[in-house]
Amino acid sequence: MVHASRQITKLLGGLVTSTILAVVPATAQQQSPVQPKPSDTQQHRTTPGGQYQPSLDVLGGKPLEQPGAKPGEPVLSKAEFDQASQIYFERCAGCHGVLRKGATGKPLTPDLTKKLGFDYLRDFITYGSPGGMPNWGSSGELKPADIELMARYLLNEPAQPPEFGLKEMKETWKVVVPVAQRPTKKMNTLDIDNLFSVTLRDSGEIALIDGKTKKIELVLKTGYAVHISRMSASGRYLYAIGRDAKINLVDLWMDPPQTVAELKTGTEARSIETSKFKGYEDKFAIAGAYWPPQYVMMDGATLEPLKVVSTRGMTQDTQEYHPEPRVAAIVASHFKPEFVVNVKETGEILLVNYTDMKNLNVTSIAAERFLHDGGFDKTGRYFLVAANARHRIAIVDTKESKLVGVIDSGGQTPHPGRGANFIHPKYGPVWATSHLGNEAVSFIGTDPVKNKQHAWKVVQTVDGQGGGSLFIKTHPKSGYLYVDTPLNPDAEISSSVAVFKISDLAKEKPEFKVLPIGQWSGISEGARRVVQGEFNMDGTEIWFSVWNNKAQESAIVVVDDKTLTLKAVIKDKRLVTPTGKFNVYNTRKDVY
Amino acid sequence: MVHASRQITKLLGGLVTSTILAVVPATAQQQSPVQPKPSDTQQHRTTPGGQYQPSLDVLGGKPLEQPGAKPGEPVLSKAEFDQASQIYFERCAGCHGVLRKGATGKPLTPDLTKKLGFDYLRDFITYGSPGGMPNWGSSGELKPADIELMARYLLNEPAQPPEFGLKEMKETWKVVVPVAQRPTKKMNTLDIDNLFSVTLRDSGEIALIDGKTKKIELVLKTGYAVHISRMSASGRYLYAIGRDAKINLVDLWMDPPQTVAELKTGTEARSIETSKFKGYEDKFAIAGAYWPPQYVMMDGATLEPLKVVSTRGMTQDTQEYHPEPRVAAIVASHFKPEFVVNVKETGEILLVNYTDMKNLNVTSIAAERFLHDGGFDKTGRYFLVAANARHRIAIVDTKESKLVGVIDSGGQTPHPGRGANFIHPKYGPVWATSHLGNEAVSFIGTDPVKNKQHAWKVVQTVDGQGGGSLFIKTHPKSGYLYVDTPLNPDAEISSSVAVFKISDLAKEKPEFKVLPIGQWSGISEGARRVVQGEFNMDGTEIWFSVWNNKAQESAIVVVDDKTLTLKAVIKDKRLVTPTGKFNVYNTRKDVY
Repeated sequence: MVHASRQITKLLGGLVTSTILAVVPATAQQQSPVQPKPSDTQQHRTTPGGQYQPSLDVLGGKPLEQPGAKPGEPVLSKAEFDQASQIYFERCAGCHGVLRKGATGKPLTPDLTKKLGFDYLRDFITYGSPGGMPNWGSSGELKPADIELMARYLLNEPAQPPEFGLKEMKETWKVVVPVAQRPTKKMNTLDIDNLFSVTLRDSGEIALIDGKTKKIELVLKTGYAVHISRMSASGRYLYAIGRDAKINLVDLWMDPPQTVAELKTGTEARSIETSKFKGYEDKFAIAGAYWPPQYVMMDGATLEPLKVVSTRGMTQDTQEYHPEPRVAAIVASHFKPEFVVNVKETGEILLVNYTDMKNLNVTSIAAERFLHDGGFDKTGRYFLVAANARHRIAIVDTKESKLVGVIDSGGQTPHPGRGANFIHPKYGPVWATSHLGNEAVSFIGTDPVKNKQHAWKVVQTVDGQGGGSLFIKTHPKSGYLYVDTPLNPDAEISSSVAVFKISDLAKEKPEFKVLPIGQWSGISEGARRVVQGEFNMDGTEIWFSVWNNKAQESAIVVVDDKTLTLKAVIKDKRLVTPTGKFNVYNTRKDVY
Repeated sequence: MVHASRQITKLLGGLVTSTILAVVPATAQQQSPVQPKPSDTQQHRTTPGGQYQPSLDVLGGKPLEQPGAKPGEPVLSKAEFDQASQIYFERCAGCHGVLRKGATGKPLTPDLTKKLGFDYLRDFITYGSPGGMPNWGSSGELKPADIELMARYLLNEPAQPPEFGLKEMKETWKVVVPVAQRPTKKMNTLDIDNLFSVTLRDSGEIALIDGKTKKIELVLKTGYAVHISRMSASGRYLYAIGRDAKINLVDLWMDPPQTVAELKTGTEARSIETSKFKGYEDKFAIAGAYWPPQYVMMDGATLEPLKVVSTRGMTQDTQEYHPEPRVAAIVASHFKPEFVVNVKETGEILLVNYTDMKNLNVTSIAAERFLHDGGFDKTGRYFLVAANARHRIAIVDTKESKLVGVIDSGGQTPHPGRGANFIHPKYGPVWATSHLGNEAVSFIGTDPVKNKQHAWKVVQTVDGQGGGSLFIKTHPKSGYLYVDTPLNPDAEISSSVAVFKISDLAKEKPEFKVLPIGQWSGISEGARRVVQGEFNMDGTEIWFSVWNNKAQESAIVVVDDKTLTLKAVIKDKRLVTPTGKFNVYNTRKDVY
C-alpha cells in the first residue's frame, strides 16, 4: 500500500505549521472575536507607537483618502479596513505574523507587496503556491471580492493590534466558581484519568468523552477556535485555550464538570501548561501568546494573572531586534520548578522558574529560529523541539538548564506534536518526529548513558505515506508507531494512517501498514482528514479524528492497538470539526 | 552658614536626572553624532514598525506637506525635521524619552502636545517651569527660531531612531591594538591605581591625571559627551562610554596608555561595567543603552560584542508593555558572576549571569520604576538604587538574588551616585544619599545582622545646603561626608560643598561646614558649579570639579580630608567642562 505520493509533497514544504489545523477548514462566514478596536477614536493613523488605527469613513460611497496614504496607494474605507483586518487575523496572521514581518509564511510588508503589485497578490491569494500558500480562491474559502480586498489591504501599512497587559487581562478575568465553593473531593462518577478532552475547533467548544464508554459526557463552550487542552498535575483541572487567547479552566471534580474561571491573555494564542514539579502540582498555569508576544503565569486554581513577561527581543543567531516573537509550545519541567517556553521568531527556549515571580529567574537558551512544538524524551529530562522552517530539532537538558544541541531533523519541516518515545530494537530509546514537508519519519537517540553513540543523532529515517504529517504517536505499552498525514494533498493519504511495527524497525526498509480510518468512519462526504492519534490511559486503543468542514459530518475512530482493527466509531451531531484529543492521564503525565 | 535656600528647591523637584549633568552647560552649536538616518531613503513615513523617516524635501522654499500629516498640523521640511530631531535627541530625549513617552520628564506625544498647543509649548520651552523644565530660551541656550521649530516638531509624530543589533555593532567595532600586540606587563611609570580618569564632557575626551603630582598625563579622545569611566577588576583596562554609546577601551599598561578597541552599542547610552567576580576578572564588559533599549555583553579585552539583550517589556507594577525601558546604572556583583542591570522605565533590576551567554540566566527583580543610579553597601552584598521619580530606594541582596525591599528615600528625588558608606556613631553601618529635589541627606541602615533594628530603614535625615545635589561621598579612612549641590539655583550653594563630620551625626541637628570650592578655584567667571567629590586611593584628599561652560575656564580643586583646607587647584586649558572623576583603585574596588 506504499505508493507514488510518498515523494516530497512540495505543496507543504517549509511553509505550513500546525496553524493549518486552524485555517484549512475554516469558512469565511465565521465571526471572530479577534477584531482589533482603535483605542482612541480620535486617532486615525498608524503611529510609530503602533496603535491600530482604522482609516476614515466612507463618505458618499467614495472612500476618503486614508491619512498617511501616498498618491497611487490603494485606499480602503474604514469598513473595508476592518473587514480585511478580520480576515487577515483569521486566515493570514498565523503564518505571516500579526505585523506581517513573516514567519512560517513570507513577509508581507508594503515595501515588498508594492513590488509584487495588486494583480500578483490577487492571483497568489486565489491560486496559492506550491510553496505552501493555500489556494483561498480556487478552494472557495474566500470570495473574489474578499481576495481583491485583501490584495488592496496588503498594499497598505499593517495594522497593529493593541497591547494586552495585566489591566486588560484583569478586565476579562472571571472566577465563575470561587475556590471556597468548589468541592473538596470528586463529586461525579467520571473516570477522570481516562477522559478525552476533544477540541471542537469550529464550534469553539471541547467535548469530554469517556475513554471506556465513548460517551460524550459534556460539551463545554470555550474560546474561538480552541487550540489545545492541558491538565493540572493531579488531573483535577483542565485548561483549554482558544486561538483568541481565551482560557477556560474546568474543574473535573464538579458534578457535572464546569468552567470555574476564565481569562483572556491576549488576542491570539496557542499554548497553555501547568506546573508539574513536586510541591507545585496544580499551583500555577502559564499561557503563551502570539499577540502580544508574551507569556503570562497565573494562579492554577483561579487563573488570576500573576506575571506577564514580554518575549520581544533579539533573534538568537543574528541578534537583531524582532518585534513579534510568538510563543509556541510550552511544557512543564519534571526536574525543576520551571516552564519550558519556546519562542518562535527569536529561537530562544526560555526556562522560566515559577517559584518566585517577584524575583523571576529565566534561562534563555539560544537554540534555533522558528521553534514550534515538541516533547520530552522517555525520561522526561530532555526536551526535543522542532525548529520547523529550519528543518531542525533543538534538544535541551532540563536538569542542567542547557542546550544539548541542534540537529537536522532528517526531513522537511518537522512537525512532531509532542513526538513519540519508544525503545528501538537496534538503537535503544529514541524520540520520533514526522514531517510536514515530506514522507520522512525520523528517530533520534535519546539515551546518552547506555546508548551514547546514538544519542542526539538521527539514527534512522523511514518513509511514511507522504508529506503533510502533523502528529506521530505511540504508547509505552504499544508495539506500534502511528503516523498521520492529514495535510497530504492525496485524499487517500490524508484520510488514512501509516502504522509501523516497532519490532520491525531493525529491518533495512521497514514497511508500514495503512489503516483507512476515513473509510472506517463510514463518512462519505468531505475531505475526511485523519488527524492526531491519542491513546487511552492504559494504552490499549488509539483514537483518531476524522475531521471535516463545519457543515459536514466528522467522527472519532477508535482503533484496537493489538489487532490494528476498528474498535468503535464515535459520531454525534455535537462533534463539530474535532481535531486534537487529550487523554487526561497521558497529558498530565506526559506519556507519549 | 546654613541659610534660606535650604528649603525645598522646587525648581528641581522630581524632574531632573543626572542627564542634567549632560544638558545644562551644552551649547546649541554642538555637533552630535546622534543624528538618526533613515535606513531606506525610499521610505518617507513613520511606520508602525517604527523606522525613523524624515518628511519630504523642501520644494521651492515651500515645505511639502509631511505625509501622514493631518490638516492643520504644523508641517516641517526635511531639513527642519532633521534639525529638530538633532536638538531633541541632544536636549530633550534624556528626560522625555526617545519615543517621547515620558520618563523623568513629561510625555510629549502629539495627543498631549496638541491639547497644549503651539503657544504653550513655545513658552514652556522658553521659560521652563518650577517642576524642573530648563529655561532653554531665557537662558540663551536655544534661539527663538530653534524654540519655534521645537514647538512645531512636538506637534508631529515622534521620529523613532533605528535599531542597533549585533550587525550594526560589529560594523562599528575596531580593535586598534590586538591583544597579541599589547604588553604583558605595565610598560609605563604611571601609578595606575591612583590615576583619576576625568570626564571632559563637552570636548568628548577623558583626562588621565596623576593622583599625587596632579599632572595631566594624557588626554584621550572618546565618544560624544562622555558619561563615565569604569575600570577592569585588575585595573589594567579603562572603559569610557559616551552619551552616543561609543565605548573606548584604554590599556593603561601601554606607554603611553591608548585606546586599544572601540565599539558603538546603540545611539544613546549611559552605563558600562566590567566583570569582577573571582575567576572572571577583566574577562567581560557590559554596556547599557538608552536607545535602543538593550544591553550588550562584550569581551573584556577586545570589546567584541557577544550577547545583545533587549530590555523592552512590561513595567514591574502595572505589567503593561513599555517600548523604551532604558538601561540606567550597571554594577558588577562581588558575590556571583553577575551584572546588576537597572532598567529605568520598567523598574526591573536584572541580575545577568555572564558565565554562559548561550544559556543566559537572568533574574528579573520587580523593584520600582525609574531606577537610576546606586551602589553597594559596605560589604558589597547589598545593592541600593534610587528610583528617583518615585522618591524611593530599592535594595537588592546580590547573594540571595532577591529584593530586600523598597523604601521611601526620606527626601525628594534621591540622587546618590553610588552613595556613601560609613559607620554612623548611633546606627552602625549606613549608606547615604542626597537629593536633587530638596536638602535632605538620608542615612539607611545596611547591617541586618548586628544592627537589625536599623537595617533597610532611613535611620536619620539631616539637612544639607539645599536641593540640586548630585553626589555624596566619603571614604573608609575619612571622618567626613561631602555633599555637592551643583544644580541648586543659588550660585553660592551650587559653587560650594557641605561637609558633615561623621562623629557629629549622633547630635540632634548636625551642622555642616561649607567649603567654598568655586571661590577656592580662583575662577571668577561662569556658574562655577562644584560637582562630584572623588577620593584619591589612600583616602587622604577629595577632588571636586569646578564645572563651567565649554567656553569658560574650569578647574579641579583638591581638598585635604583631614583639615578640610585647599590643597591644590588643577587648571589647564585642556580641562574643558570636567564633570565625573574616577579614581582607578576606588572605582575598580567599589570603594565609596
